[in-house]
Amino acid sequence: MPVSLAMSRRLRRSFYFGRVEEQGVGACTVYNHMLLPAVFRSLEEDYRHLVAHVQLWDVGCERQVELRGPDAARLAQLMTPRDLGRAAAGQCLYAPLVDAGGFMVNDPVVLKLAEDRFWLSIADSDVLLWARGLAWGLGLDVAVREPDVCPLAVQGPKSDDVMAAVFGEAVRAIRFFRFAWLEFRGHPLIVARSGWSKQGGFEVYADDPAVGLALWDALWAAGQPFNIGPGCPNLIERVESALLSYGSDMLPGDNPFECGLDRYCNLDRPIEFLGRAALETAAAAGISRKLRGLRFAGSPCPPVTMAWPVHGGGRRIGDVRSAVWSPGLGTNIAIAMIDRAFWPAGSHVEVETPGGACPATVADLPFV
Amino acid sequence: MPVSLAMSRRLRRSFYFGRVEEQGVGACTVYNHMLLPAVFRSLEEDYRHLVAHVQLWDVGCERQVELRGPDAARLAQLMTPRDLGRAAAGQCLYAPLVDAGGFMVNDPVVLKLAEDRFWLSIADSDVLLWARGLAWGLGLDVAVREPDVCPLAVQGPKSDDVMAAVFGEAVRAIRFFRFAWLEFRGHPLIVARSGWSKQGGFEVYADDPAVGLALWDALWAAGQPFNIGPGCPNLIERVESALLSYGSDMLPGDNPFECGLDRYCNLDRPIEFLGRAALETAAAAGISRKLRGLRFAGSPCPPVTMAWPVHGGGRRIGDVRSAVWSPGLGTNIAIAMIDRAFWPAGSHVEVETPGGACPATVADLPFV
Repeated sequence: MPVSLAMSRRLRRSFYFGRVEEQGVGACTVYNHMLLPAVFRSLEEDYRHLVAHVQLWDVGCERQVELRGPDAARLAQLMTPRDLGRAAAGQCLYAPLVDAGGFMVNDPVVLKLAEDRFWLSIADSDVLLWARGLAWGLGLDVAVREPDVCPLAVQGPKSDDVMAAVFGEAVRAIRFFRFAWLEFRGHPLIVARSGWSKQGGFEVYADDPAVGLALWDALWAAGQPFNIGPGCPNLIERVESALLSYGSDMLPGDNPFECGLDRYCNLDRPIEFLGRAALETAAAAGISRKLRGLRFAGSPCPPVTMAWPVHGGGRRIGDVRSAVWSPGLGTNIAIAMIDRAFWPAGSHVEVETPGGACPATVADLPFV
Repeated sequence: MPVSLAMSRRLRRSFYFGRVEEQGVGACTVYNHMLLPAVFRSLEEDYRHLVAHVQLWDVGCERQVELRGPDAARLAQLMTPRDLGRAAAGQCLYAPLVDAGGFMVNDPVVLKLAEDRFWLSIADSDVLLWARGLAWGLGLDVAVREPDVCPLAVQGPKSDDVMAAVFGEAVRAIRFFRFAWLEFRGHPLIVARSGWSKQGGFEVYADDPAVGLALWDALWAAGQPFNIGPGCPNLIERVESALLSYGSDMLPGDNPFECGLDRYCNLDRPIEFLGRAALETAAAAGISRKLRGLRFAGSPCPPVTMAWPVHGGGRRIGDVRSAVWSPGLGTNIAIAMIDRAFWPAGSHVEVETPGGACPATVADLPFV
């Protein structure tokens, strides 16, 4: 039985959520204390449309934690093992945040606006409080705030055409994970080639409700010849593409190596960050578990709402973090944290789903 | 149209949520990254049952942030303007948390377990990250963690009888906002006379899934002669009782005086806390807005999902934070942040609801 989402002011709405309701959103989740659409027609219909056409997404829940001031760069670097020092203004950097134990706190995209100004476009945890606590405790000269910025995303293979119709041809020149300031009706906006799918597209960081809503409507109108549709981060697409979700796939007890984020851990650079000692120890010792893919047959599996145990060699060797039926692959696919002995692709394991035990094989991520 | 809640592992489940599903929960919200039931039969049916009988609540989302170690007391005090120094072990203290600007961060119940061990039973923001950031920045000798404790609550006028049937007569001696360690099947548990209603009752801090579930079932069985029912924090009851909800009634831009929490701000005591300077300034200057009650007629109002403007004297003088139809009072009631000129009970204002403008009168909190 589906459970309704009880609405309250505590579950904040983006500039666009009225439009999302008009579009007939079917299910939402809550992310950074905001509503995030999860399904419009069905997961599969939404998926098929996304990979073929273009969608307009309300991702206002991607909150920005702004660090601004003389110590902004130092604070940003303190929070992540990724070397931010070589980044240029206009660059987006995916950066795991870790605590003093080397455990995952969040995994934002860091936008470098200026040498002394960063936006952390965060996943679902209160990085605002984390950054403020660190800044106050250390006596840093930095302002930490959450500006009321509501990103919207245009995603799918026809994204460039829709965006060019509204922002002009300049958008086509924006490189992947770079952003430019482009004007919409005289209002400069950050436009980044990024987004929570692997189907291509942009995120626009609207910082004004009226401008944001006008932009939403302009994109929707411009998208009509391209069969634009409502949409949202799609579970099928993100599991196929292995776009990890903090809180589902990555948990507060995981380190970035276990999450496969080694290439964002620049331990060889002389950077100062919390958890350096812990990550150096983990790197030296090697990890004993890691996120891997699983494929398992049977009827389409339900959503993962708690740990599904994974067994191998007669013992528990891990747990499923996310899973979904992939219509393209014709099988269930999952992201699971599993023990080292079972990392090789093709290893045979067993997943304990709510519907019963299913034989599964280990696969590389991403699936597609 | 009701929107479904899209389930995922990111929305964590308490030890009891399977039982909640069996009981036919109708709507949930998300609180501290966990599912929190909001409605079983209907708001009004749930309400009528709660005030007459007894209910078993899954409040596992009341997460505990544990501070433990030589600097635990110092860190706890740093986070709140309430003087924690005179508290005895076994005491529960409602305590607003404020940041360096004197703004609300959370409003937990602080359980003093020992001189060097506190649990902050938190509202909906990541106090874990806030406390860890402060502790690390200041170099404090304190462990900050979230133990997997899932409180359950027994609430309603027949709570003592149900609890006594399971824990023995000792529970009756527990005073309001005190707790005792009581055994359930050989396992010691914190049992507090507290909870998120004004109908009387207890919260039990289960720290083990199997023990918690067994306790749930034992309470359910023991409650049968008392007409125990499923339930949850109820919007009607909490607005009537003015039990404020952080994120709805209290926002990150409010200070505790504006929220009517003056008596928890011990500025006259020699305690060290963040935001002391800001709160001293606010206290000296006086506040210009405050949470007050509103009554307004018309048909039962919908849930508040964004700011409903309040007008008075031809200008905007505030906004509604929560509102609900009170069947007992036969009117809509609201908690609103309004300007000083309109604080007197009986002042005439106007509420802009989604259904249109409604004349309203200012009332004292609580309503009942």
